[in-house]
Parts: sequence; structure tokens; C-alpha cells
Amino acid sequence: MSTTTKAEATITADEKLPVIRISRDFDATPAQLMRAHLDPDLFARWVGPDGMDTKIDVWDVRDGGSWRYVAGRDGEEYGFRGCFHRIGADVIVQTFTWEGMPDDVSLETIRFEALPGGGTRLHAQSLCDSFEGRDAWLRSGMEVGVNQGYAKLDRVLADGVGA
Amino acid sequence: MSTTTKAEATITADEKLPVIRISRDFDATPAQLMRAHLDPDLFARWVGPDGMDTKIDVWDVRDGGSWRYVAGRDGEEYGFRGCFHRIGADVIVQTFTWEGMPDDVSLETIRFEALPGGGTRLHAQSLCDSFEGRDAWLRSGMEVGVNQGYAKLDRVLADGVGA
Repeated sequence: MSTTTKAEATITADEKLPVIRISRDFDATPAQLMRAHLDPDLFARWVGPDGMDTKIDVWDVRDGGSWRYVAGRDGEEYGFRGCFHRIGADVIVQTFTWEGMPDDVSLETIRFEALPGGGTRLHAQSLCDSFEGRDAWLRSGMEVGVNQGYAKLDRVLADGVGA
Repeated sequence: MSTTTKAEATITADEKLPVIRISRDFDATPAQLMRAHLDPDLFARWVGPDGMDTKIDVWDVRDGGSWRYVAGRDGEEYGFRGCFHRIGADVIVQTFTWEGMPDDVSLETIRFEALPGGGTRLHAQSLCDSFEGRDAWLRSGMEVGVNQGYAKLDRVLADGVGA
């Protein structure tokens, strides 16, 4: 259920809670990672698997603001939406729904931890309301999108995001 | 952990999930209950324990809109905020935070079921990200606010809410 090579994210299913946890180290500061998650142009450059084209539809970065984007590949489109419940200095708390399953809502917390030797560890937690729903996400091949997306994020950070 | 007298809500802690479930029957239609939850003036008349004065600060009723209200009593004020992730015909999915514990975010689903004999059963689910956090809510005396609030909601519905 988890992988720990250097270039891949660690994806873990909690044993007691309907939670998926992801962690991944980056050569950047927490502020740069916040920017790469919150700036719509930067975010669209890296989120999702290779070959997906992401179009931002709604992007209102504030506590209580909402977001929506559409990912497209080979003529297929997939909409995702939610709201930014809270944006702190190094944390984002948001709801998340894939519009193909509108009743399925997860609560995501993404936190950035500065590492003592430099770099930043991303900690993402997705809270689902059932173990069945959580396990369906884990079986969906999500690790491909996570790892390809974070590899693109490495390149976006290397190109420079300011902050 | 649960009570089942006619006038009181049933409040249940899930054994496997960090979830609180509340159910309560009302002499009204699902549409009237949706209105009493979504109209800010009606909502302010019934939410919370007796003696609390509720002031709506933000109330943007749409998928992705946000809300905030402040409850006051004896000079003390308590702020609550979140966003409406989804508003369906008979369901509201929202985030919920008491501003006194801003890191604590729960995901609430409130669903209204028309009963065969008339009336409506409210089903509310609060999903927390830990059992400790869930159990702290259960020990907080929340049942007083829930039951006094729903008794006020009975009276608001009896006065008439349209729909």
C-alpha cells in the first residue's frame, strides 16, 4: 500500500480512519509550494497525470472561496470542484469532489513542513466518509496521477515560482 | 450514547468511523426544512441553544459559497464558519469550524427524508478527522444545543416558512 523510493510519493491508507495520506519531499521552500498550489497558472502546469490538459474554471483563493478545474485528454473531460475552507501560512484545507461522483466529497488537508536540511515535505490527507469510498480511490490508479503530477511540480519549481 | 424519546434527537457515535449521526423527525416537508436551513433569517431564529442570539455575517447559498455566523450570550461571542460544498434538492453538504478551534474542520451532510406517513426525518452526519476530536464534540454538551435548537425549529415550522 505504500512506496518509499526517493522520486515517488509515499501513499498510505490509515488502518483506523477512512483516510489516505500522501507525503513527498521537494527542493523548494514551503512558501514556494504554497504558491505552486494556489496560483492557478502554476497549478494547471503540474496537477494530474501526464498528457492531461488542465483548464481552471473557478479559482477564488480565500477562506471560503471555491475552485473548479476541468482536466481533458483525448476528447474526454473530467471536472473537479470544491472550496478552500482555510488557507494558512503553510496549510490548505479544502473539499474535493470529482464531478463524475457528485455525492462523493472528501476533505483534504495539505501541509508543508520545512525540513532541517533544506527542502520541504508535503503532507496531504484525504478524509472520506467510508472505508469503501477510500479504498475505491486507492484502487483507482491514483498513484499514477500523484507521481506524474509531482514530477511535473519538481520541474515547475526548478523553473522558478518566486517567493 | 443515544436517546430516542419523541421530542429529542437521536445522537449516535459510529463505532468504526469518526462520525456523529443525528436524526430527528419534524412535522414539515423536506422543502420546508431545506428553507429553514438555507434562509438566513429563518436559520438565525432556531440554531443553537436557548438564550443565544445568532447574527448572520456571511451567507452565500450556492455550491461553493461560504457562510459565517456569530452566536452571542452574556457578552461572549462564538463564531462559526464554513462553506456550502453542495446544495441539492434535499441535501446540504458543508464544512464546519468553530473559530475557537480553527484547525478543527468537520464535513457535515444534512439530508431530509420524506416519511411515508407525512413529516420528514432529518439525518445529519458530521465527519471528523480523528476519534479524539469526534469524542470531544460528544462530551461538549452538544446535545443541549441540538435539542433546544430543534425545539425552536419546531416552532419556526409551526409559524410557517412557506414552500
